[in-house]
Formats: sequence, C-alpha cells, structure tokens
Amino acid sequence: MKYPASLVALIRELSRLPGIGPKSAQRLAFHLFEQPREDIERLAGALLEAKRELQMCKQCFNVTDRELCDVCTDTGRDRAQICVVEEPGDVIAIERSGEFRGLYHVLHGAISPMNGVSPEKLYIKPLLTRLQQNELKPEDHEVILATSTTVEGEATSLYLQRLLEPLGVMVSRIAYGLPVGGALEYADEVTLGRALAGRQRVTR
Amino acid sequence: MKYPASLVALIRELSRLPGIGPKSAQRLAFHLFEQPREDIERLAGALLEAKRELQMCKQCFNVTDRELCDVCTDTGRDRAQICVVEEPGDVIAIERSGEFRGLYHVLHGAISPMNGVSPEKLYIKPLLTRLQQNELKPEDHEVILATSTTVEGEATSLYLQRLLEPLGVMVSRIAYGLPVGGALEYADEVTLGRALAGRQRVTR
Repeated sequence: MKYPASLVALIRELSRLPGIGPKSAQRLAFHLFEQPREDIERLAGALLEAKRELQMCKQCFNVTDRELCDVCTDTGRDRAQICVVEEPGDVIAIERSGEFRGLYHVLHGAISPMNGVSPEKLYIKPLLTRLQQNELKPEDHEVILATSTTVEGEATSLYLQRLLEPLGVMVSRIAYGLPVGGALEYADEVTLGRALAGRQRVTR
Repeated sequence: MKYPASLVALIRELSRLPGIGPKSAQRLAFHLFEQPREDIERLAGALLEAKRELQMCKQCFNVTDRELCDVCTDTGRDRAQICVVEEPGDVIAIERSGEFRGLYHVLHGAISPMNGVSPEKLYIKPLLTRLQQNELKPEDHEVILATSTTVEGEATSLYLQRLLEPLGVMVSRIAYGLPVGGALEYADEVTLGRALAGRQRVTR
C-alpha cells in the first residue's frame, strides 16, 4: 500500500518539529485528517500570521510584534539590571516568577561547540554594544546570568562573565540549590553540594 | 509583559493538537519563530494540501487521495477477508506486518459511552451494507476484528461480533498473547492467562 503523497508530505513536515518523531507525526497527521477544514485553516493561518507578525526586539532580542518589546518599553522597569537568558521562553518563565523588574537580553541559544554553536552565533555582541552605548555607564549595570545549569548554559555563563568583568559591569549568576517543593533525598549530589555551599543565614 | 497576539494565537492552535499541552505548545511556537519563513510556509502548505487532497475511501474508509484506496483497488488482494480496525494508522501497522492480504474496514474510533462515542458515530452501518451488497455472499466472508485490546476496543469487537453472527459471516478476533521480544516475567497476569489459554500445538 502506497501512502497518498499529501499525507507523506504532512508527516514529513510534522516530524521536523522538535520532540515529534515519525510515529507521533503520523498520529498527528491522522488526527488532523479527522478535524474539520476550519480547524486546519486556523492552524495554518496562525503559523503564517505568527511568522509574518513576530520579530525580535531591537534591544533585547525577545519575541515581539513591534520594534521594541513590552519589557523594553515599560518605563517602570529598572534599566540598570539586565537578565541574560538563552531563549524567549525563559523570559516568560522569569516574568511568571514575579521576582524581576529589570530588563532582559535573549541570546537565542547557548555556546555548544559539539552542535556548532560558537559565541558568534549568539546575540552576545549586541549585549556588549548595549552596555557601552547605554545612557547608564557599564559599571552602573548589574548583569544577571540566567542561562541554564546545563554544560552549555554554564559555558555560556562563564564566557559572558569573562567578557563583562573587564567592562566594570557587576555580574551575578542565578542561585543553584534545591528546587522548591523537592524532597532532599531526591536531589542529586551536585545540586545538594551547591545548595549547601550557597546556604543563607536566617538568624541575625 | 503581554505576549504578542499572533504568538498567543499560535500557542492556542498548537495546544489543541493531541499530546501537546500548553508548555509544549509554547516551546513549539518559539521553535517555529526561529525557523526560516520557507519552513513555516512549507508546514502550513502541507497542512492545507493534506486537508484538500485527502478523503476517506468510499469502500473501507481508509485515508486516500482518490475515490477508492490502494488496498481496495488492488486486484491481488483477497476480497473474502475484511480486517476491521479503529483508525487509518492501524491499517498501516498491519500492512507493515506483511501478514494480511485481504481488505480493511476502518471504523474511525471505538465505542466509548464515557466519551459520547455510540455505535452510530462509527462506520459500522457501511460495514453491514458492504457485506450484504458485495458480489460475495455474507457467509463467504471472514471478518477479522482487529480493534485494540482496550476496554473500548473489546466492547466494539463484542458489539460487531453480535451484529455479524446473524448474517452468517465468519468472525474472528486477532490473537491475545505475549508481545514478541517480551520477557515473560514482565507480562501482566491477564495477558499471560490469555497467552496460556490460546496456546498452539507445535508437535503433531
């Protein structure tokens, strides 16, 4: 039995999405086949519309549908703090925590020589320009390195630290420790070691 | 921070897909944002093209891009055997086994009162019509019930069995037993019981 060409094409395109293997792509394609035409048109329309409308913020490289993103144009935010993250999704995660009132800088990846991601492929140079051409002096900034705690995230963090220190920027790294709500016995030894080393005094 | 409207719309449409929750939808949307425009247009195009081209086979309700599917038009196949499955994906799975040379009938679901799927919502009536209006008499057919071994699949199988027996059709159910390559000790007791009950003599 030969599959219809349009089905093969749809399965191929779906399986290019991250986290969707050939089996899931096939299941998705058959699911879509069962849906009303309006639903498919709405999905296809949303894809094209998003690609047409969305762009990177000219200052922080977050996702936006304007020149500058909502965070960068918000006059209530602390312009001295810049939180550096890997992906636009990380901005949303940090915003949701409600603990940060500064600005962001999205690198769009992490340094990974194994995957051919060199520092030049990330938005690192614009961060340096941003710090140097800002109304505030570099030394009046705090740059918070909030890259992942993976090997790539750590390498990126270290790379940025070495690059920013000579500018006189105050650089910090988000804390390592136990995830909130986690049982201590399930924490791995590295996390536990870091959590102990980073302990904070609670009595005066 | 407000998300751009086109991003919200894309995340909403993606999270309607089966097995994709709000978090995966967000991750997918950001991934798509990073892709070149051609890739997005190809995906959207494949969706619309598949919806335009694909239809159900008039005879067996398999997915096809013509009136009748490749299996139904294949003159080399045994027209006396009809294998009843729940979904078009099941046809592909059975074809891949290479063990079946008859025709199919796709129900497009399984009876599930809990989810509001009554027998009338499945392609059961066309199966009866097909058996009665065929060049072969009903009693010359073997109908192989290859629905899932879930509660819904079993209910559907039992329902069909009761419906088909009065027509004089020979009805069979695919075998229950140990999956090939599985260790016996990992098999659940129901499967093991069925495997023992369905044992087959290997010496004469």
